[in-house]
Amino acid sequence: MAQKILRINTRTKEYVFEDVTTYAKLGGRALTSRIINTEVPADAHPLSSDNKIVFAAGILAGTNLANSGRLSVGAKSPLTQGIKESNAGGQFAQTLPKLGLLAIIFEDKPETDDFSIVRINENSVEFLPAGEIAGMQTYAAQKKLQAKFGEKAVTAMVGPAGECCLQASTIQFSDPEGLPTRSAGRGGMGAVLGSKKIKAIFLDTATSNQKLEIANMDDLKEIRKEWTDILLKHPVTSQGLPAYGTAVLVSIVNEAGALPTKNFREGKFDQVEKICGETLANTITERKGKVKHGCHTGCIIQCSQVYNDKDGNFLTTGFEYETIWGFGAHLLIDDLDAIATMDRTCDEIGIDTIEMASSLAMAMEAGVIAWGDAEGALNLLREVGKKSPLGRIIGNGTGFTAAAFGVDRIPTVKNQALPAYDPRAVKGIGVTYATTPMGGDHTAGYSVCQNLLSCGGTVDGLKKEGNIEISKNLQIATAAIDSLGLCLFVAFAVLDDERGVPCMAKMVSALTGQDYSVDDILNLGITCLTDELAFNKKAGFTKLDDRLPRFFAENFPPHNVTWDFTEDETEKAKVLV
Amino acid sequence: MAQKILRINTRTKEYVFEDVTTYAKLGGRALTSRIINTEVPADAHPLSSDNKIVFAAGILAGTNLANSGRLSVGAKSPLTQGIKESNAGGQFAQTLPKLGLLAIIFEDKPETDDFSIVRINENSVEFLPAGEIAGMQTYAAQKKLQAKFGEKAVTAMVGPAGECCLQASTIQFSDPEGLPTRSAGRGGMGAVLGSKKIKAIFLDTATSNQKLEIANMDDLKEIRKEWTDILLKHPVTSQGLPAYGTAVLVSIVNEAGALPTKNFREGKFDQVEKICGETLANTITERKGKVKHGCHTGCIIQCSQVYNDKDGNFLTTGFEYETIWGFGAHLLIDDLDAIATMDRTCDEIGIDTIEMASSLAMAMEAGVIAWGDAEGALNLLREVGKKSPLGRIIGNGTGFTAAAFGVDRIPTVKNQALPAYDPRAVKGIGVTYATTPMGGDHTAGYSVCQNLLSCGGTVDGLKKEGNIEISKNLQIATAAIDSLGLCLFVAFAVLDDERGVPCMAKMVSALTGQDYSVDDILNLGITCLTDELAFNKKAGFTKLDDRLPRFFAENFPPHNVTWDFTEDETEKAKVLV
Repeated sequence: MAQKILRINTRTKEYVFEDVTTYAKLGGRALTSRIINTEVPADAHPLSSDNKIVFAAGILAGTNLANSGRLSVGAKSPLTQGIKESNAGGQFAQTLPKLGLLAIIFEDKPETDDFSIVRINENSVEFLPAGEIAGMQTYAAQKKLQAKFGEKAVTAMVGPAGECCLQASTIQFSDPEGLPTRSAGRGGMGAVLGSKKIKAIFLDTATSNQKLEIANMDDLKEIRKEWTDILLKHPVTSQGLPAYGTAVLVSIVNEAGALPTKNFREGKFDQVEKICGETLANTITERKGKVKHGCHTGCIIQCSQVYNDKDGNFLTTGFEYETIWGFGAHLLIDDLDAIATMDRTCDEIGIDTIEMASSLAMAMEAGVIAWGDAEGALNLLREVGKKSPLGRIIGNGTGFTAAAFGVDRIPTVKNQALPAYDPRAVKGIGVTYATTPMGGDHTAGYSVCQNLLSCGGTVDGLKKEGNIEISKNLQIATAAIDSLGLCLFVAFAVLDDERGVPCMAKMVSALTGQDYSVDDILNLGITCLTDELAFNKKAGFTKLDDRLPRFFAENFPPHNVTWDFTEDETEKAKVLV
Repeated sequence: MAQKILRINTRTKEYVFEDVTTYAKLGGRALTSRIINTEVPADAHPLSSDNKIVFAAGILAGTNLANSGRLSVGAKSPLTQGIKESNAGGQFAQTLPKLGLLAIIFEDKPETDDFSIVRINENSVEFLPAGEIAGMQTYAAQKKLQAKFGEKAVTAMVGPAGECCLQASTIQFSDPEGLPTRSAGRGGMGAVLGSKKIKAIFLDTATSNQKLEIANMDDLKEIRKEWTDILLKHPVTSQGLPAYGTAVLVSIVNEAGALPTKNFREGKFDQVEKICGETLANTITERKGKVKHGCHTGCIIQCSQVYNDKDGNFLTTGFEYETIWGFGAHLLIDDLDAIATMDRTCDEIGIDTIEMASSLAMAMEAGVIAWGDAEGALNLLREVGKKSPLGRIIGNGTGFTAAAFGVDRIPTVKNQALPAYDPRAVKGIGVTYATTPMGGDHTAGYSVCQNLLSCGGTVDGLKKEGNIEISKNLQIATAAIDSLGLCLFVAFAVLDDERGVPCMAKMVSALTGQDYSVDDILNLGITCLTDELAFNKKAGFTKLDDRLPRFFAENFPPHNVTWDFTEDETEKAKVLV
C-alpha cells in the first residue's frame, strides 16, 4: 500500500491519514521543507498555533539499505526564525513505514498546560495524559514509557528544555537499545513540539500489517550489495569512524590549526591529547564500553559508541566530535569524563550540545564561570533542567546568553551557534555556515571533506579559491542525502567512489520503479534548498543575514588567517530562488 | 565661537574638539543619525567597540526659545539592532552650548571592568573612577555626584541596568531640580554607554566662557514672542497637558476603545477611573505634590508633575501616560500608587517603563505572576536592579522575556515594545509602529493627533483611509522637530496654527543668519529619516521587518477592528532611500 502522511491537530485531537498527492516523490528533508514552506506562514511565531512540526522518513527508509534510517524533523525554528530541518538517528524513521507512514505533521496547539503522549497506530491516534513523565528527564521518562509500551518502544520525546520551549531544545529519539539518546539537536525542534504540549510520541507497531512497497525487489537486492561495498571500501567509513567515532577529528582538526579554542581565539588546544579520539577509544576499551555502535538498525558505519564512567557503568552514547570540541577545547576543559557527563546531561534535559557549548562560552566570556571550569559548566547546564531563570537563559542558546550577560563576541550565524571548525581555517565550511538556510551548521555542506580530509578532491581551507564551489555542491548533495534518509557520512565514500551517486539513483529506481538519474538525485537537493531559501526569503532573510560575525575579521593563529569573503561572493554558494 | 563636536575615545581616553565641518547644518536627531549612519558599520554588534554613542543638542538649543531643550541620544540599538535616536528632557541639551558644544561622541570601548565618570569642561575631558557609585541606583548616585560637583550638577547616568548592558536600559538625565528623572528611554542606549564603562557624564560649566552665537538677536527676540504665543494659544499645550500631564490621555484613549488592555486583548479597561489623568491630578493636589512641572528650563507646557506618596513624601516625577497605561491597563493593575512606585523603580534602575510593562505582560502570559498582581510586578522589576538572572531576562525587554518563558503573543515591532495605543483602533499610529526606523514607537509619528484629538485635521483611526499619509507626514515633521531640539508636544499647536512651521523656519533663520524656508525644515526631517532608513537597510532590514505581529489580525473589541494593512501599503509611509 502507498505510504500516507498522518496529519494530527493537537488542539482538536482530530487526525487524518492523507495520500501524499501534492507531496509525491519527496521524502526526508525535501518533504519537511516543502510542507513547512507550503503550509506555515513565514511570519508565524515559531511557538504559535500557526507553526507545524513534521517528522519525515527518507525516501529509502524501510528498505534495509545500509544507513538509510535517518529522520528529518522540520518546522520554523524558534532559534533561527528560519526554516529548519533537524536530522536524527534512532529507530523512528525506519518504524514509520511499518505503520504505512511516510511522515507525521503536528498542527495547531492546545490551550491546556497539560502534556500528552501521542500513541500512533496503523489506523488511529490516541492522546494519553503524560501524567508523571511530564517534567521528567529523558532517561527516566523513557523507562516509564518502556514499562508501559514495552522494552523496544520506539519513541520521540522532549526533555524539560522542550517542555518549557527553550530555543535550543532537542527532540530525543530512542536508539536500538531503547535509550533516548539520538537527537534532532539543532534549531529548537523540542520547543516547537513542547509548545504543542506533546511530551512523547510512541509508534505502536504491535498490530500493524503494513509493509513497504518495493517496485523491484531483485534490483534492490543487487544494488544493496554494491552500496554496502562502497561504504565498506572507504577508509573513513570503514576504519576511521568505526574505530574512533567522529572524535577521530579532534586530532586532525587541531593538527590543521582549525580547532576553535577559547571561543574561536586560536586553532590549537594545548591539552588536545586528553580529549582526542585515540584517548576516547582507549578509555572506552579500558572501561569495557563499546567502541563501535550504530545509531539505528542497518548502520554499518557505527560511529557511535558506549562510554562508561570510571566505575565501568554506562555514562553516555552518541558522544560526538562536536560535543567533545564544544565542552572541551572551546571552553578550555580537558577532562573527558566531565565532557561525557555534560553530553549525558544534555541528552537528559533534551538540549543541543553544540548550542550549549557556546552558551557556556558566553557565560565564561562574561565571567559567570571561569574558562576551563568543568564543574561550573556542568552546574550551569543542570540549571537548564531545573527551568530556573538562569537555566532558561543558558537553554535559549548562545545569542540569548550573550544578550543576558552583555557579551559581544558571539559565534553564531542566524542566531545558531557555529560548530567545531573555524571558518577562517576551513573556509569551505565558513561558506556553508554563512549561506545555508539552516543557520550556523556544519552538516549542511561539510567541506571538511575537501579542506582537511581530501575526500572528493582537495581544496585548501586557508585560501578562498574553490571554496564557494565546494560548499555549493556539498549543500546540494547533502540536501539530497537528507531527503533519501541516508546518513550524511555516506558522503565520505560517495565523494571518492564514482559508483556512489549512480548507486543512489539506482536505489531509488529499484524502490519506486521509476527511472531515476544522477541529475534526478541532485535535483532533489536543489528542490529542497529552493524551498528552504524561499521560506527564509518570505521570512525576511536577505544576503545580509548570510554574514559571519564581525570578529572573524581578526587574525586566527596559528595560520593567522581571517574571514575575507564578501556577502556578494558567498551569495554564489546559494541556489537561485 | 562656532560650536564643536567633542569626540572621546573610551579606550585610549583621548579626545578632540572637532569643527562640525561635514556635519554642518545638522542638530539633534538629524545629527545623531547622520553620525551613526556615517561612522558605525551597520553590522557592528551594538555592544562592541565598533558602536558609538552620540549626545546631540538640537539646532535651537541654548536660544531660550520655549521648549527647545530636548536632547537626542543616538547609537545602533541593542534592542532593535537598528539605528536609534532616543529623545530626552533634562538640562543636558541646554548645557552643551555653554561648553561650546553641539554634540559629544563616545567611541571604542575599554577592556576594564571598572566604570568611570567622565567630567567634561570647556577645553578638557577627565576620566574619574566611578568608585562607590558604580552599581548604585540613580537617585543615590546622583546625590553622590551632587555632593562632589554641586547641587546643580548637570549629569547623564546609567543605572544598574545599563551597567550590565540590558537591552531596555535607559540613560537618565538630571532635571531642573537635579534629580535623575529624565530618560533617554527607548532602545537600550544605557547598554551602549554601559558597554563603554561609563557610569556618568558630568557637564562642568563652572569655568566656561562659551556663549551661543546668535546671528540676529533682534529677530530672535521677536520670533520668540510669536512662538510662545502659538504654544500658549492651543488648548492641548496650554490647558490639557499642564492640568493633567500626558495622563490626560488615559480617559480619552479608553473612551475611544483604543487603550490596550490585558496585553492588547481589548480597548477598554473597566477600572480606568482609578488610573486616569483626573484621578492623578486630584491625588497630586491632595498630597501637595505639583500638578505642573517642566522637564527642562524653558518649558512652558509643563506636562511633568511631582507625585507624592500617601504620606506626602516625594515618590516620582515625569510620570507619563505610557507608564500609567503600561503598568496599569496593560497588566490589569488599577493601583495608582503601585504604578507610581514602578515608575520610580524604573528611574532608579535606569530601565524603560514601556519596555518593562510589556516584559511584565509576558511574565503574566507565562503565569510567572498573575494578571493584576501589582506586588508581583514590582518584585520582578526590582530583580532587574539586582542583576539576577530573572532580572536580566525582564530587563532585556519584551521579546527576550517572551522567549525566556515560551510566550508567543508578543507586542513588539523590530523587537521594541509597542506603546499605549492599539494599532487596530488608531491605525495611523499602527502605520508608524510598522514603518518608523525606530521600531515600535509612538513618538516617531504621533497620529493620535488626527485619529483621536482632531489636531491637524481629523482622520478616522478605525479605518484605513488617510492613515498612511498622516503617518508619513508626521514622521517627517517629527524628525524635523527632534532635530531642532524642540519638545514633540509643540506639534499639537503647530499642526493647528498656520504660523507654526513658518515660525520654526524663522527661528532657525534668526539663529543662523541663513534663510530657512518651511521646505528647509521639512527637508531636515527627510534627511534624518533617509539616514536612518539607509542604516537599517545596510543592517539587513527590509519591508518584511515592517510588520506588526500576526496576532493583530485578531478582532479588537469594542470596535471589533483588525490590522488590515499589507506591507506594500505601509511601505508608502516611508521616505525613499
